[in-house]
Parts: sequence; C-alpha cells; structure tokens
Amino acid sequence: MRDAVALALAEDLLPLGDLTASLLPEGAMARGALVARGSGVLAGRRCAMEAFAQIDRAIEIEWTLDDGDDVAPGQVLAHVSGPLASVLTAERTALNFLGHLSGVASLTQRYVDAVAQANPATRVWDTRKTTPGLRALEKAAVRAGGGVNHRGSLSEGVLVKDNHLTGMAIGDAVASARQLWPGRLLEVECDRIEQVTEAVAAGAGLVLLDNMDPDQVQACVALVRQQGNARTLVEVSGRVSLESVGDYARAGADLISVGAITHSAPVLDIGLDVET
Amino acid sequence: MRDAVALALAEDLLPLGDLTASLLPEGAMARGALVARGSGVLAGRRCAMEAFAQIDRAIEIEWTLDDGDDVAPGQVLAHVSGPLASVLTAERTALNFLGHLSGVASLTQRYVDAVAQANPATRVWDTRKTTPGLRALEKAAVRAGGGVNHRGSLSEGVLVKDNHLTGMAIGDAVASARQLWPGRLLEVECDRIEQVTEAVAAGAGLVLLDNMDPDQVQACVALVRQQGNARTLVEVSGRVSLESVGDYARAGADLISVGAITHSAPVLDIGLDVET
Amino acid sequence: MRDAVALALAEDLLPLGDLTASLLPEGAMARGALVARGSGVLAGRRCAMEAFAQIDRAIEIEWTLDDGDDVAPGQVLAHVSGPLASVLTAERTALNFLGHLSGVASLTQRYVDAVAQANPATRVWDTRKTTPGLRALEKAAVRAGGGVNHRGSLSEGVLVKDNHLTGMAIGDAVASARQLWPGRLLEVECDRIEQVTEAVAAGAGLVLLDNMDPDQVQACVALVRQQGNARTLVEVSGRVSLESVGDYARAGADLISVGAITHSAPVLDIGLDVET
Amino acid sequence: MRDAVALALAEDLLPLGDLTASLLPEGAMARGALVARGSGVLAGRRCAMEAFAQIDRAIEIEWTLDDGDDVAPGQVLAHVSGPLASVLTAERTALNFLGHLSGVASLTQRYVDAVAQANPATRVWDTRKTTPGLRALEKAAVRAGGGVNHRGSLSEGVLVKDNHLTGMAIGDAVASARQLWPGRLLEVECDRIEQVTEAVAAGAGLVLLDNMDPDQVQACVALVRQQGNARTLVEVSGRVSLESVGDYARAGADLISVGAITHSAPVLDIGLDVET
Amino acid sequence: MRDAVALALAEDLLPLGDLTASLLPEGAMARGALVARGSGVLAGRRCAMEAFAQIDRAIEIEWTLDDGDDVAPGQVLAHVSGPLASVLTAERTALNFLGHLSGVASLTQRYVDAVAQANPATRVWDTRKTTPGLRALEKAAVRAGGGVNHRGSLSEGVLVKDNHLTGMAIGDAVASARQLWPGRLLEVECDRIEQVTEAVAAGAGLVLLDNMDPDQVQACVALVRQQGNARTLVEVSGRVSLESVGDYARAGADLISVGAITHSAPVLDIGLDVET
Amino acid sequence: MRDAVALALAEDLLPLGDLTASLLPEGAMARGALVARGSGVLAGRRCAMEAFAQIDRAIEIEWTLDDGDDVAPGQVLAHVSGPLASVLTAERTALNFLGHLSGVASLTQRYVDAVAQANPATRVWDTRKTTPGLRALEKAAVRAGGGVNHRGSLSEGVLVKDNHLTGMAIGDAVASARQLWPGRLLEVECDRIEQVTEAVAAGAGLVLLDNMDPDQVQACVALVRQQGNARTLVEVSGRVSLESVGDYARAGADLISVGAITHSAPVLDIGLDVET
Repeated sequence: MRDAVALALAEDLLPLGDLTASLLPEGAMARGALVARGSGVLAGRRCAMEAFAQIDRAIEIEWTLDDGDDVAPGQVLAHVSGPLASVLTAERTALNFLGHLSGVASLTQRYVDAVAQANPATRVWDTRKTTPGLRALEKAAVRAGGGVNHRGSLSEGVLVKDNHLTGMAIGDAVASARQLWPGRLLEVECDRIEQVTEAVAAGAGLVLLDNMDPDQVQACVALVRQQGNARTLVEVSGRVSLESVGDYARAGADLISVGAITHSAPVLDIGLDVET
Repeated sequence: MRDAVALALAEDLLPLGDLTASLLPEGAMARGALVARGSGVLAGRRCAMEAFAQIDRAIEIEWTLDDGDDVAPGQVLAHVSGPLASVLTAERTALNFLGHLSGVASLTQRYVDAVAQANPATRVWDTRKTTPGLRALEKAAVRAGGGVNHRGSLSEGVLVKDNHLTGMAIGDAVASARQLWPGRLLEVECDRIEQVTEAVAAGAGLVLLDNMDPDQVQACVALVRQQGNARTLVEVSGRVSLESVGDYARAGADLISVGAITHSAPVLDIGLDVET
Repeated sequence: MRDAVALALAEDLLPLGDLTASLLPEGAMARGALVARGSGVLAGRRCAMEAFAQIDRAIEIEWTLDDGDDVAPGQVLAHVSGPLASVLTAERTALNFLGHLSGVASLTQRYVDAVAQANPATRVWDTRKTTPGLRALEKAAVRAGGGVNHRGSLSEGVLVKDNHLTGMAIGDAVASARQLWPGRLLEVECDRIEQVTEAVAAGAGLVLLDNMDPDQVQACVALVRQQGNARTLVEVSGRVSLESVGDYARAGADLISVGAITHSAPVLDIGLDVET
Repeated sequence: MRDAVALALAEDLLPLGDLTASLLPEGAMARGALVARGSGVLAGRRCAMEAFAQIDRAIEIEWTLDDGDDVAPGQVLAHVSGPLASVLTAERTALNFLGHLSGVASLTQRYVDAVAQANPATRVWDTRKTTPGLRALEKAAVRAGGGVNHRGSLSEGVLVKDNHLTGMAIGDAVASARQLWPGRLLEVECDRIEQVTEAVAAGAGLVLLDNMDPDQVQACVALVRQQGNARTLVEVSGRVSLESVGDYARAGADLISVGAITHSAPVLDIGLDVET
Repeated sequence: MRDAVALALAEDLLPLGDLTASLLPEGAMARGALVARGSGVLAGRRCAMEAFAQIDRAIEIEWTLDDGDDVAPGQVLAHVSGPLASVLTAERTALNFLGHLSGVASLTQRYVDAVAQANPATRVWDTRKTTPGLRALEKAAVRAGGGVNHRGSLSEGVLVKDNHLTGMAIGDAVASARQLWPGRLLEVECDRIEQVTEAVAAGAGLVLLDNMDPDQVQACVALVRQQGNARTLVEVSGRVSLESVGDYARAGADLISVGAITHSAPVLDIGLDVET
Repeated sequence: MRDAVALALAEDLLPLGDLTASLLPEGAMARGALVARGSGVLAGRRCAMEAFAQIDRAIEIEWTLDDGDDVAPGQVLAHVSGPLASVLTAERTALNFLGHLSGVASLTQRYVDAVAQANPATRVWDTRKTTPGLRALEKAAVRAGGGVNHRGSLSEGVLVKDNHLTGMAIGDAVASARQLWPGRLLEVECDRIEQVTEAVAAGAGLVLLDNMDPDQVQACVALVRQQGNARTLVEVSGRVSLESVGDYARAGADLISVGAITHSAPVLDIGLDVET
C-alpha cells in the first residue's frame, strides 16, 4: 500500500513538485472536509491517510466514517487540517484512491443487496479482472462492500477453464490437481450440464457455471446437490448484471462472480472543501 | 510500462506460479485470438504484448488493428500462438490492461464524437483523476480515443483552483506564476463571471469555467474573446455528461475536461478464444 | 527470479565490479564445466542461467541435466563457455543459487524417498519456514525434489494454529472461514484428539496433527476416516526427522510437512572447473 | 534490511493479507514470548523487530538477550505484546529471519570454539558462499557468532583463484593488482607449496592454502613465516569440518574460511508462544 | 528524495557497513558542526537531514541557515549531535548531497547576480542538462540560488530544436503543438532571424535564440516585441558565460538558460568538524 | 547501470512522453553523429548505448572511439541512426551520462598527466566524494581517465580519520582493525608527523597525510620509508590542485587523492548533430 501511494504521488509531483501550491503564501493553514458528492460505500481510508502523511506528517485527519460504512451525498467523511499547500498537493492522489476504491465497494454493495433480497444464502465475489497494480486494494474494497474474494491470484488455487480444457480432460485435470496441489480450492468451469456431472464425479470442490441462463443453473445446482459432496459449491459467471443477478441467486448458486465490480465500477465522487 | 506489467504479473503469479497451467501436458501448443465482445476503440496493445513477452518470449502475436482503431463486437484484434500454458498464464494480465485502456479510449471517443457533432473547434481532454499508478497509460489511451491531455501532473503547469483561492487572490496568483514558472500553462478556475474578468486581466492563458450552465459559459466565452489575448483558451468542467457535453461545446468552449473518461470508464470486454 | 538474481549480483559487484577479473588479459576465453561434488537433485538451473546472462550475453551454457534429475558426485551438470573474466565474475552467484536450491531439492528427495518406502499414499510437503526473499524459488525446488507445496503464503488459505485458538474456538474459526473465504484450503492444527473431532465436525478440509507420536497419529487418522468427509486430509508436523518420517507415513497421514527441507537444507556442493 | 523485510512480508501476505488472522475477533490482544527450542547464538534481532514494526507499530518487544548472546533451549528471548492478529501475521517472517540468522551465528560459534581450543591465534571467517539476497545480514550473523568476515564482495579485494590462474601467472596477477588496486586485500590461492613461494615473493598479503592436509599447511606456514613480510597472513580452505578444523588451527593458519557457516547452517529453532 | 538518499547510503555501506566506525568504542557520543569551507548558497538541507535520519534517528541537527541563504567560509551551517559512529557513517553521504546541491545553488546565484546588475527584468533558468537521477533535486537547488526552472522534462512542454527542424517546418510544428498539446509551453529554437519571424508568426510562446551574439539578440528581441504577442518571451542559450551573460541580459532577453549551473557546478566545500 | 539509465529516462519522460517528438512525421528517420565540442577523455559509452536502446532497439550506434580514448574538439565519437523521434527522445539522457562521465575522466587525466611529469611512481586516485547514486559509474570514469580507485565504500576498508580519533587512539584503532577486519586496506589520516610515527608503528598499510605542504610530505615520506614495512604506502590529500599536484608528487607520495575529479568535474561538452 505504501508503495502504491508513493508511486501515485511520484507520477503527480515529479520532477518540479506542485507548481501551483508553490505560489501560496508561506504558513497558510487550511481546515477542510472530505465530502461525498454521491451515495455508496466508503473504502480506501488507509490509502488516503497514507497519501496525506507521505506529503506532510503535519496534516491531521479525523474520520467520521469507517471503510464499509454507507455514504450519502453531502456527507462529511473526514475533517482535514494542516498546511494549505501540503493539503492541496496531496488532495488529488488521496481522492483518486478514495474515489476509485469506494467506487468498487459501492458497486459491490449494489450487487450484494440485489442478491440478498433474492437469496440470502448466495454470495457475490470478485474475479481476477482487476486494475493492474491494484489487485490487493480492490479486493479489500470488495470486502468493504460486503462481497467476498475469489482467489487472489493464479497461485492461490486451481480453476480449470474452457481454454484449459482444450489441452486436457476434466477428470485428468482434477486428478492432477488433487495430486499436485492438495487441499486447495479446486474448481472447474462448465458450459454444459454434462461437464457438471464430470466435474462433480472427479471431485471438484467448486463448479463454475459459465454463461448459462437461470433455468440451466437451477438444473445444474440440483445435480450438484444430488451427486456432490455436501460441501461442493456452485458458482455462476457470465451474463450477470444488476438486473439478472437476483434470478441467478434464486436459481440456487452459492456464489456469483462479477467482474464489473472491479473492472467497471464508476468512481464514487468525493471532493475536498476547504473552508474559506 | 515494463514495470507496470511486471507488477501486474507478480501480483497474479507469486509465489507458486499458475497452479492450473502446471496441470497441462508439457509441450501443448495453442493458437487463439483476442476477440472483442463489445464495440469501442483499441488501446494498450503494447502492454498486452509486454505481458505475453514477459511470460514467454516464444509467444507470437499478430495484430489486425492498431491503438486508436475502432473495434466491433466479435472482431478479432490479434492472433496469438505459443505454448498453451504460457498463453493462459499471461492471458488475464494482458486482457486486464487491454480491457481497461481500451475502455478509457472508448469512452473518450464517445465524448469526442458528441463534441465534434456540436462544435468541431471544441476538444475533449482529460484530468488528473486517473487510476493510481496508471497515469501515463491512461493518458495515452485518451489520445488513442481522440482526446487530448490536460497537464500530466502538478509539476507540469499552474492551475489555480477554488481551494487555492482561499489562500491568495487571482491577480497575485497569476503574477507569481508568471514570475516563478515562466512560459508555462497558466490557468485559473472561475466559478463566477467576475473571476473571469479578473483572470483574463491578470493574464491567465486558460480560464476554467467550473460548474456553470451552457448559458453562463457562453457569456464567459464572449467576455474572454473580447478582453483576452487572441490565444486565451476557455475550458469547461463539472456537470459534463454525454448528454450535456454538446451544449457546452456549442457554447463555445475551447476545451471540455471529463474526469469520467479515466476514472469511470467501463472495461471494453475482450476475451481470448483458444482454438480447440 | 530476474530481480532476485540482479539483487544477488549487485551485492557481489557494487561498486567497483570484480577487482580480480579486471586483472585478466583482455580477450581470454574459457571453457569449463559445472561439476557436482556431492550427490542429490538438481534445481535452480534457470537462476544460474540468468546470472551468467545478466553478466554477459556471450556466455553459453549447455546443460546435461534438468531440474529434478539425480546428481552423482563428479557428474558434469553443464558446460560453460565464454569470456574468462565474465564467467568468473558470474560464477559465485550462479553457484550460490544452484547449490542452495539443489540443496533444498536434495533434502526434499531424501524425505520423499523415506516416505515412499513406508507408505506410497503419503506425501511430503513444505512449510512457510523459507529463507526470506526466496519463497518462490525454494518452493519450486521442493517440487523438483518430488515434494508438494503447502500454501505459498498467508494469503492463500486458512490454517488455524494453536496461537489462533487463544483468541477463538475451533468451531467458530471454521465457520467464519467458510463464510469469509469460501472454497479455500481450510486447516486446523490439533494437539489433542478431542480437537480433531471438533475440527472434523466443523468441516475442516485438512487436520494438522502437531507434535503427536505415530500411535496418536494413527488413532486420529482412524477418527478422521470415520467421521470426516471422504476428502478430508490429515497432515502431520513436528518431531519429524529422516528417522521418524517413515513411522508417520505408516501411521496413515496423507501429508507430512517438513520445515527442514527449506530452512535447514545443506548446500549441494557444485563447483566450476575451468579447463587449463 | 528494511527492504529485505518488506520483501519477505510481501511474499507472505500479497494479495489478500492473512486470511486466518482475519477470522480473529476485533480488538483481541496478545502477550507472548519468543522462545528458543534449541541452543546456539542469537542473531537477527533487528530484522525481527522490523518485521513486527512493519506490520503494526503497536506491537511492543522487550528483548532479554542481545545479538551474539548464547541461547539455551527453553530460554525466553523476548516478550512480545500487541494486537493478536498483527502479532500472528508478522510471526513467521520475524521467526524466519531470526531462525536463519541465529542458525548462521550458532554454527559459526561452534567452529570458533573448536578453533579457540586448538590455537587461540587462529580465526574463523566466512566466504562469499552466502544465500542470495542475504549477504549483508549473514555476514553480520557471522560476526555475532564470533567469526570475522572475509571480503564482502568481488569489489572489495583481490583473490586470485585457480580458475584465474588458467589465464595469468601468479607474479603477473599480483603485480597488476598492486598497480590497479593499491592498498587492498591481495590474496592468492595456492594448491601446491611452489605456488606459496611464488605468491610470497610477488608480495601477496594473504596466501590461501586450498585443499591441503594439516601437515602440508604446517609446511607452508613455516615457509611464509620465513620468506614473507611479518604481516603476511595464511588462510586455509577446503576439507574443513568441525572435526578437522582444530588440526588446521594447530598447523598455524591465521584464518580458516568455512563456507558451511553461511550456506549450510541449520536453522536455530525459535517459536512464539502466545499466553492463553 | 528518500529513495535518492537510500540509494546513496546503500552504495556507501553495503555489504559490511562502515568498517572504521565499527572500531569506535560503544556509546561514544559526538557533538559537531557542519562548516562551510567556501562561500556560496546553501541547498540540500532536507537531503542531509534524511541521510542522518536514515542512519540513526538519534542524531539531532540544528540548522542556523535555510536553503537559499548565503554562506561564508568558516560559517557554521548546523550543529550535529548523536552517537559518534552513526554521525561518521552518515557524514559523507550527507555532505555529498549538501556540497553538490549547494554547488548548484552557488553557481546559479553568480549568474543571477551578474544578470541582475545588467538588467533586472532578465532571469536565469536551467536546462535539462542535469546529473542523471538528480533532476528534481538540482532543479530545486537552482531555485534556492535564485534561478527559475525551464521545463522539468520532455513531458512538460514543447521545445522545437534544430534537430527537430530536420523533420518538419516551424509553422507545422507550432500548429501541431497547439492542436495536440493545448495550453502548454511552446518554444522554438532559432539560429537565424528569419526563423524568429516564422516562429512568432506561427504563435510560439517562447523564442529561443541559440548561439547568437548580443547584437543579434538585440535585433531579434526588437522583432519579437514588434510582431509578437505581448507575452511572447525571448530566451537566449549558447555562448553564455559569467563574463558574457550581462551582455545578453542587456540585449533584452527575458530568460537566459545556463547548462553549466547544473552540469558543471563545482561543489561547495562543506565539512563536518567533530569537537574533540 | 541499467537502473540508473531507466531512472534518468523516467525523470525525463513521465508521464506524457516526449511532447515535441510526438509532432514529428511518422516514419521519419535520422542519421547523426555524436560530436565533441571540447577536448578530453571519453567515458560512459555503455550508458549512452543503454539510453538509446531502452528508448528504441532500432537505434544503431557505431563508435569510432572507446572509453579512455582522447577526444578533440569537433571529433566524431559515434554515428547514430534510427527513427528520428526515438533518437531525439533519448538524446539528452544519453548526452547527460556521456558528458558527465567524460568530464570526470577528462579532469582525472589532467591530474594524472601533471603527476606523471613530476614523478612517474605517483598515482592519482579518487575519494568517496562522488555524486549520489553515481558512485560506480564515476569510479569507472576515473579509471578511464587513467586514475585508480580508492576504496569504493565504507564497507571496503578501514580509514581512520581525524574525526574518528576524537573517539580512540591511533594504536588502538589499528590493532582493532587488524583483529576485526583482517587483510584489508588499513589507513590512518595524519595531520602531524608524530601521528605518522604512531601509525607506522601500529602497522598501518597506508598513511594519509592531510593538509600538509610538500616539504612536510617529503619529511613524512622519509620517515615511512625508514620505519615502515617495504609496502607501506603514503597518500596525500587536501590543498591539492592542478598547480600543486606536481609538487606533492615530487615530494614522494605514492598516491594523491583528488575529490575534485568526481565532485567538481565540468561536463565534457558533447552534442548530437543530425544531418539535414
């Protein structure tokens, strides 16, 4: 996190620093507030604090909310005080983190709410479709928004997808995975119900139903509940939107993965208002 | 760019590498295609190439399109061939860059098109509201989408905003800027028409009209054309959407800045289809 | 890997370079061989190649063996040729990687062999007790030695240990883990047979029997097979040595974790002999 | 040191952090102790402190021992207190440094003690056969164990080895070294007594006797004392073990280099016991 | 700045640390002073403080002067106190920054003074001819010496030089620049008066007169004042020395760029005197 | 070296790249030459090549001279050809390295020549007063200029200076050094002839005569030759200029250290001329 903030500040300040802030009278102090201009869920507090702190340890921030809290338009998220030049130099970097990560949390929450109304046993989780360099921060923002995290990386678990199946059969893949990577998340992507049967028989711990409609999902869930281990989980991906996600939840999926919550979340608009 | 790709691969592969790819039979080769699943503008080719190359120099990519080219759903962007395991290990990172940057270019183009229809003399440019760590790549994607770049960083030019004006007057700020930072971009944010008069008189090279409606913009533009230097530029920001951007263009702004093209651009969906 | 090699070369060469090699006559060429001075298993070939390549692209290496192959004392592992000064400058760094990683692979193989003779169904895996900075390389060396990898990091799976149990009960921990981190490796360390019952009942996917003797292990394995899911795995740790590991395997453990293979593996002695 | 710790924490925590610690109840605090499970010499205190500090500044450590102090099985090395989750997240990284570096110090001490009993004028020093990336830390651990450091890098001094002598004669090498690298450590590896004569005549400051038996060493020492400068030093390497090292000391070597103390030191087993 | 200091300390201390300081008696404390041995302008205080702080937080520094203040030979710049070993270990790195950056500020001031006497409306600014890796620090030192900064990087503004004009005409270059990089510094290098006419007509904001004599400059300035925008600036470069700079100022240039202030500034000699 | 070049390019190009080069017509190619505008010694060829290569592998460079060769004004050092935009983007970074390092080599050569005429047995060497971050490159440039290198870092040898002697006596310092850091460069700074006696008696390998006049140096040299070991070396520092250096050489010093060759060397002016 420290490195991500340092990188962001460097790309905004090198080589000459903040030209505009250099014009301010020396010693000018500021009191201001971070204010939401939209509604959503707060995330990224620590990044914002780190940005202000890396610019100037003399900046003080008092938060009125925590990561994961709901945010309403016009709501004050934090009071910021310190040297005016320092506050304005750090402002944009702090807000870029806060806005982006709160945006991720906010969109996550909308999916989580839609699912919760449809089926409280279903959960929303994320994908590896994250913004390059921000994987860890975005996955934390997903948690702040009430979602859970699918595997953090290719190193964390086995997910046999359609492209892998061009090179090996489901049964062989699952057997190898149990041999080479014991104890781990072991999931197979299935596009057809026959593959579900195969995956469950081979001993997959998760079955990923990709690009099916809710009815197909319901049929596959029934199959898994009947043939699988009590703990075999069913995930749905593809064709999932805020409109359709409730139907997939009602179809009985344990988990619904949504790429959009990390790759297409609009920013939560947050500004800094300095008191005149 | 090399570092950004290396960071993204590291966050996806450490410490054990790609567990699933390790299950594939040794020597399996792949031929596949990068295929668009939506329409927009391509950007980020070099990042995608770098991701494949860092994983395995044996992967070959032949592009059918260049950055900045239009993309239609189903269109093949490139042919990819090489060791199956390597291709699948690099796939997600390559696509994360390509999808995100093409998303930025695509949304930029929509704004650019809307503006071009309304007033060919007006241009769309970006802001410093970029994703932390990706400033340079996103600004290049904006150019691929037909937009231009506002200042790349706080170090590149002077932009006196409302928060700065809590600490100094417009006239003093502009005079100091000319003294300390000669020759540079020198812009003043104005919320009221009186400020425009003040900024132009002081010698600002750009006037930023923030949160005004098109009529106010039109009045301010007239003022600038009358009182300003022949090369004084007028920028509009705030309240700008795909619906309203045409009105602002027709009001005569030289430049319209849109934060959304970098901070809220949805991904352009691109997939990798391996031939079976 | 590239970074680890660059770091190792930097710590051996900065700031003045190789003083001794600078004394050699310009243009002197070398032909030499990497020769084992002990027996074991080869690992780390790519690191050695990278070290030579970073010093001088003109150095050529022809390997006679691959990672994972058995090595006998006196055996030639590779032929090296190139500028004498470059070869000698890279030598120690290349050998430090090769010796250390082959040492890890070699000790792993000794455990794997001892286990295989006792119980072919039992496997040896590693721990997080790795050398700081070399986690990924050492885990790969374990695989070269025939072992498998336990979780690569704290981020990869849940392992509730005795120290965690000072803060929560087994049942609660497992339930939370299933809720927060669905689908993942979920293991509970048990020091007593009662804990095994509790862990299995809660739904742990792995049970770690710590510091038990083989008889206790046998009893716990029986318990797990009776009460657990068909796929619940039993791991043994603590008190494991080359002498005792066979007894633990015969007691029926699925997996035996051995910290020594990464934290206490003596180097495999490998030298570079330049032909006079 | 800060970077080495940051790297080690990153490889253990990215991208999702410590999954298991996330299950602990918020606000749970821990008091615990770092306890030795074997005997040896402590080293690496600062690395352990840095690891805890990088995770959470609220963790407090009170040491009962210093680097270089003897450690007995069961001895408490330090008391640790702070948030339970933070303590457990940092635990393994802190212990990996502490165990590895204390292992280096402990094995060094065993050699130092064996030498001291045989000949108090002889000293043990290390080699460049260190673990990649940990050169500085391991060389400090050798000092903690009572050893001294041979050159830290290729950049620090001249050591003409057998492989160099394939490209130049001893006399020429020494003369060039005095010319190009005045004032520095200047050592020649000798496999035969004739080379000793040659090296001393050329003006080497150290003579390295490689792979000789104690009788040969004694003869060479006599030769150096007779023909050399009063300050010419004799070093022994090769064939050195805990059993043989006393014989080499008695043969009159000034310095005995031991690669094993850095490349093959078993860990000193140290654990963290949290009070229930 | 933190990274530049860390890099400098690493190149002075790795891998064994400060051998000489290790000989000092434990607990020895020092009081000393940073004393100028020449006259000039102070710059680089923050780098020096950072160097001492990175070595030991216990070192205290009290400055008697600020960056930009005049320095006389023998003058005490700061009092330093703390552990003797730490102070001496950090000394050289701190002084290397302080001496180099004060050297840049001092030479800048000499040019600034020479210009001020000749024409108070003319200013001295720097170039991109900076020491690799120290751009930001040297540009700050120029400001401390009373100079201003030309563009910080190629990314900050457009400067069309003679080499660019081998590939395009002045008019086309300026027109493209206004189109692609609106609002930015836009400068054209002119070797002949005809080019000045062309550049001004095209709308360049700055005209760079390269390698002209003062008379030619005077003629070109007259031309610009007559034909250009009221804010078009004239810069002189080439053939500028402490002797000639006054003539160029009197010729009416707005800005004179001097590469020597960053690429050829002799160090300001500053030493550390420890009280006995 | 690769990192130093990458850092220098980053500080010149981020975040928007080379604005001016972006204006050039696509496909424009350049042929040009690196031409000296002054006389001196070439150094830094590899850095310049690396800068061009990191920007564009398609740029080709043919050198007519090697590092260490004499350079006359107007002489062509290399021919450069490739895409015009790439060549111009890399130009300044390549020249900054080349000019600075050749400047170091050139000033070194002037001292070396002055010394050679006075006393062929005396050599010029450098100090640790190098530009932060460029230690290794500047020390190589000193060698290119015919000088030799004093210790590369504090880690390489012992040099007891006046400030150290506030905390310990010469005899104790030398004895400790021989004990703790055997075989290494061991030097004592002496301001008075009594200290020389003391240092030689204690066994220092080098005696540094600081701030003495040539007569005092001659007396001290005589003392060392009489009382010291045949290989004890005498170094002179302080008060050394191009005018005085010959006198110190004639006084019999073995080595004369000159801080100015690294900290105050003016750039060797080198330009890139593109053929029209």
